[in-house]
Amino acid sequence: MNELVFEQPLNEKVRNYLRLEHLARQLDTHLHEDHQHRCFFPLFSICELSERCDFRNELLKDVDKLLVQFDGSTAQQQMSSHQQTFFLEQLAIAKDELQKPDRPGVQLKQNRFIAAVRQKLNLTAACCNFDLPQLHFWLAKPWAERQQEYQQWVEHFHCLLHPISILLQLTRMSSDYQQAVAHAGFYHDSSPNNLSLVRVKLNPDDGCYPTISGHRNRFAIHFVQFEQQKHSQQTVKFLLATCS
Amino acid sequence: MNELVFEQPLNEKVRNYLRLEHLARQLDTHLHEDHQHRCFFPLFSICELSERCDFRNELLKDVDKLLVQFDGSTAQQQMSSHQQTFFLEQLAIAKDELQKPDRPGVQLKQNRFIAAVRQKLNLTAACCNFDLPQLHFWLAKPWAERQQEYQQWVEHFHCLLHPISILLQLTRMSSDYQQAVAHAGFYHDSSPNNLSLVRVKLNPDDGCYPTISGHRNRFAIHFVQFEQQKHSQQTVKFLLATCS
Repeated sequence: MNELVFEQPLNEKVRNYLRLEHLARQLDTHLHEDHQHRCFFPLFSICELSERCDFRNELLKDVDKLLVQFDGSTAQQQMSSHQQTFFLEQLAIAKDELQKPDRPGVQLKQNRFIAAVRQKLNLTAACCNFDLPQLHFWLAKPWAERQQEYQQWVEHFHCLLHPISILLQLTRMSSDYQQAVAHAGFYHDSSPNNLSLVRVKLNPDDGCYPTISGHRNRFAIHFVQFEQQKHSQQTVKFLLATCS
Repeated sequence: MNELVFEQPLNEKVRNYLRLEHLARQLDTHLHEDHQHRCFFPLFSICELSERCDFRNELLKDVDKLLVQFDGSTAQQQMSSHQQTFFLEQLAIAKDELQKPDRPGVQLKQNRFIAAVRQKLNLTAACCNFDLPQLHFWLAKPWAERQQEYQQWVEHFHCLLHPISILLQLTRMSSDYQQAVAHAGFYHDSSPNNLSLVRVKLNPDDGCYPTISGHRNRFAIHFVQFEQQKHSQQTVKFLLATCS
């Protein structure tokens, strides 16, 4: 079965982490294939997010909490010892990276080329060569050269993106999918524990997508028919995972 | 020689036409290869530009003027009779297209999916699947299906983009490149006639790009060294075309 996963964060922290993970995936795409000026969109988005908020303290707290949990013998029972070793190592690396003094992305602010492109690129259709002749010049460089520069720019954010990737992996592993049914396109549930992420897996052949809302330990799912862009009245079978 | 062309419009009309031409090229790229959600950026830019300004009247005036010129026997002397026939046909088709009653893009405003994506996509990193589950659903459709839908959306703008492509082709053909030299990285010139477009062709190995400013019949070119992002003091040889 061709399956499609939809995720909804139930707190602000996981919301930010998911955004950053999404950007990390986009940055990665642009590292492996030449998408011309389009590579700058996720780069500037991550610049903006990391300027608005310094995620390092929050990440460091989360990493420390997990390191303690992994040390305690009762935690992570669902994991093989191989997995435990892997995550312990990754968390230790992440902690080191997070403790570097420079705020991620600060070096890019000093790059005059990056600054000039960033200032204009978000204006409508503003990457004509008369708006940004320097971008036009840069895009004419060989891809291998641009790729190398791009890699250097992206690496400034590795210290954020790597821990986020581990934390979200662990969050997703905290719960398995269970069968669930939405009657008349609606489903709701709550949990005695605080939840951080709701995941819905469904068959796109059903022709509908979920809109999920929720906070802390409660959530509701409305299924919408894609073609009509209207609430579905169908009975929808799906898989649900509620991660804490 | 690997050559790079920089263009500067000298009036607002050609500035708009160049923007729309640039968007047309981007739309075209996305028609031929699956670039995921990135295909929406130029689509929404062209929606925005064509909502801000209805270019059809201006284009129609330009097309009519050219049709008269092509009829007069003295005009277009630099063209072969084959080229003249080609452009006459294209201009006649363009005129027909421009006279259709609906404003280009108005149909897209009624598409609820397009409207929802457009509202959010320009917010920073707002194409996570929790921001736009409908986009996540759409992106999971087979590329052939998405390509067909995209083609239909893009076609709404054909009546603008086709005449612009002809007009800019004719503008560029109105002048040949001449050798020019910028001393200490600076060049300026004026013309007895109104100009609409200045074109600079140079060798990127010189490591500099031009920043061109100008209005009507005067223009100035400063060459900037890319690596230093500073005004070049070099003598720069380049090719220059001033199109009216």
